[in-house]
Amino acid sequence: MVAQVIDGKAFAAKVRAQVADQVAKLKEENGITPGLAVVLVGEDPASQVYVRSKGKMTVEVGMNSYEHKLDVDTSEEDLLALVEKLNNDPAVHGILVQLPLPKHLNEDLVINSIDPAKDVDGFHISNVGLLGTGQKSMVPCTPLGCLMMLRDHHGSLSGMDAVVIGRSNIVGKPMAQLLLGDSCTVTIAHSRTKDLPDVVRRADIVVAAVGRPEMVPGDWIKEGATVIDVGINRIERDGKNKLVGDVDYASAAARAGAITPVPGGVGPMTIACLLANTLTACCRANKLPEPEGLTA
Amino acid sequence: MVAQVIDGKAFAAKVRAQVADQVAKLKEENGITPGLAVVLVGEDPASQVYVRSKGKMTVEVGMNSYEHKLDVDTSEEDLLALVEKLNNDPAVHGILVQLPLPKHLNEDLVINSIDPAKDVDGFHISNVGLLGTGQKSMVPCTPLGCLMMLRDHHGSLSGMDAVVIGRSNIVGKPMAQLLLGDSCTVTIAHSRTKDLPDVVRRADIVVAAVGRPEMVPGDWIKEGATVIDVGINRIERDGKNKLVGDVDYASAAARAGAITPVPGGVGPMTIACLLANTLTACCRANKLPEPEGLTA
Ligand SMILES: NC(=O)c1ccc[n+]([C@@H]2O[C@H](COP(=O)([O-])OP(=O)(O)OC[C@H]3O[C@@H](n4cnc5c(N)ncnc54)[C@H](OP(=O)(O)O)[C@@H]3O)[C@@H](O)[C@H]2O)c1
Ligand SMILES: NC(=O)c1ccc[n+]([C@@H]2O[C@H](COP(=O)([O-])OP(=O)(O)OC[C@H]3O[C@@H](n4cnc5c(N)ncnc54)[C@H](OP(=O)(O)O)[C@@H]3O)[C@@H](O)[C@H]2O)c1
Repeated sequence: MVAQVIDGKAFAAKVRAQVADQVAKLKEENGITPGLAVVLVGEDPASQVYVRSKGKMTVEVGMNSYEHKLDVDTSEEDLLALVEKLNNDPAVHGILVQLPLPKHLNEDLVINSIDPAKDVDGFHISNVGLLGTGQKSMVPCTPLGCLMMLRDHHGSLSGMDAVVIGRSNIVGKPMAQLLLGDSCTVTIAHSRTKDLPDVVRRADIVVAAVGRPEMVPGDWIKEGATVIDVGINRIERDGKNKLVGDVDYASAAARAGAITPVPGGVGPMTIACLLANTLTACCRANKLPEPEGLTA
Repeated sequence: MVAQVIDGKAFAAKVRAQVADQVAKLKEENGITPGLAVVLVGEDPASQVYVRSKGKMTVEVGMNSYEHKLDVDTSEEDLLALVEKLNNDPAVHGILVQLPLPKHLNEDLVINSIDPAKDVDGFHISNVGLLGTGQKSMVPCTPLGCLMMLRDHHGSLSGMDAVVIGRSNIVGKPMAQLLLGDSCTVTIAHSRTKDLPDVVRRADIVVAAVGRPEMVPGDWIKEGATVIDVGINRIERDGKNKLVGDVDYASAAARAGAITPVPGGVGPMTIACLLANTLTACCRANKLPEPEGLTA
């Protein structure tokens, strides 16, 4: 079997186009422009790149982008005051505080100070709780992107055996909740899992979110399974820098039914889902129907 | 193999004795008496029985019990006002609103109006979120009781294959989170699961929380596995009323390494854990060290 490649770049472009359509409609019919506020504290180079590309794509889909760049020494009090201001600003429908924060700031405290309805990263404990009880919530962007690709490929996921490798709060655990919400039989594996190859071999859907370059070889993959590779690992090979996933792409693609590449798989979906979440938050705030296909 | 019977009745008595010891210590050393407020709306007979036995056991361990029995026609406003009063009452460390509520009352709204720190049922979305992110929370009583029995029997659960049958918000899902927190490889199965026998057969730990009398037969159980039967089902057999679990006890006990009976297994642990949660909440409210072995 040679796997179908799930083209995340193309799919993300499609999602962004859908968002742009809905934003245009919102402006025309309701006079509303969704707004996303991104808060960056300090000058972490990777964070700066993320924030820049988030801002760029926000504007591209027709939304307003509000960037707040704060000094690395910003006090917790000042940061919380800014979040409070954004919570109360009706032009702001989504708020994202770029992580990681400098060490003197309490991330949990800051994230949980965001109005859950504006928490487009889906990290607020209320949103975790809503997702964990099958209620309407803001869903973390990366697992939401994975879910969208899986739904697009399979239609219904009901009854499929899904294995999520990794149990982080931002990927593995919410991914498991989403797959459970779509009625997969869900197994969560992690570093203490015994006989991981065997666990993965029974999966119709494998989501790898580990952070270990190419740790999942093809012979762990059941013939025809769908493989979603969340990992983004920078390695050096043949003297060159390279980006690889948590799955050994070549051998896995030879057995899988479908697979996401790295780069160009899950990665591009994350920002697309951030925009989708902002649109969803805007519609909810204005008591308008939510766009279809852009939420869990 | 003949399974060891996990005696929930004896274990629950032990937990209550531990709680009583700690309560006595709290009174003596700190002059604090933990208090549990239980709110019952209407006259559902089953709920009345539960509330009565909760009140009785609360007093038996030396805590204060505050019972609030409201008319079935109580307005949402009045109920919320009572919860607010209890939230602000320093003598009340735990608040439990007995479910189900009469239909004109919004259960989610009422539960989420309880101060999460006093939410001894662990149903508030903040507590679900805290548990779902591996943080300190109030943990739902029934799954907490199951976890305590499993820890008592096995010591460490790390690396064990656990299967939870059922994905309800009050049993299945929090149970899965707790087992994951103790580093089991966790599979969640439910009514859409294909080939449930096979899924259950690979488990070292089976938690059945389905609500179907004796649906899990012994030949689904791996030799030596630990079986926790949460189900409480009233059936008629040979002209008599009988209480049975979700597991066919006789055939499962012939294969399991350990098993909880019904009645006398998980059931008695639930109220014991409610008392444990109230004690934990009281210690946290007073910034005292938490009792050991009584929380997740
Ligand atoms: N595409 C995107 O937009 C995007 C977004 C976020 C993250 N990522 C990438 O996704 C990967 C995971 O991210 P994360 O934030 O979830 O990572 P994380 O917080 O480090 O969590 C990694 C998880 O993998 C588990 N693990 C580690 N070694 C393992 C092993 N040998 N076998 C099985 N499980 C193992 C860990 O288990 P324990 O819990 O037992 O330690 C942990 O649960 C990273 O490569 C990251 O760069 C990509
Ligand atoms: N010991 C105690 O103190 C205590 C406390 C609470 C509950 N209980 C007992 O525990 C049992 C479960 O309670 P609950 O509140 O969790 O029940 P619930 O809300 O009705 O949930 C039942 C779960 O079982 C699943 N299920 C139903 N039929 C199934 C089948 N044929 N195969 C596999 N899964 C199936 C359902 O799947 P879907 O989600 O796909 O529908 C659902 O997730 C009941 O007997 C209840 O009385 C005991």
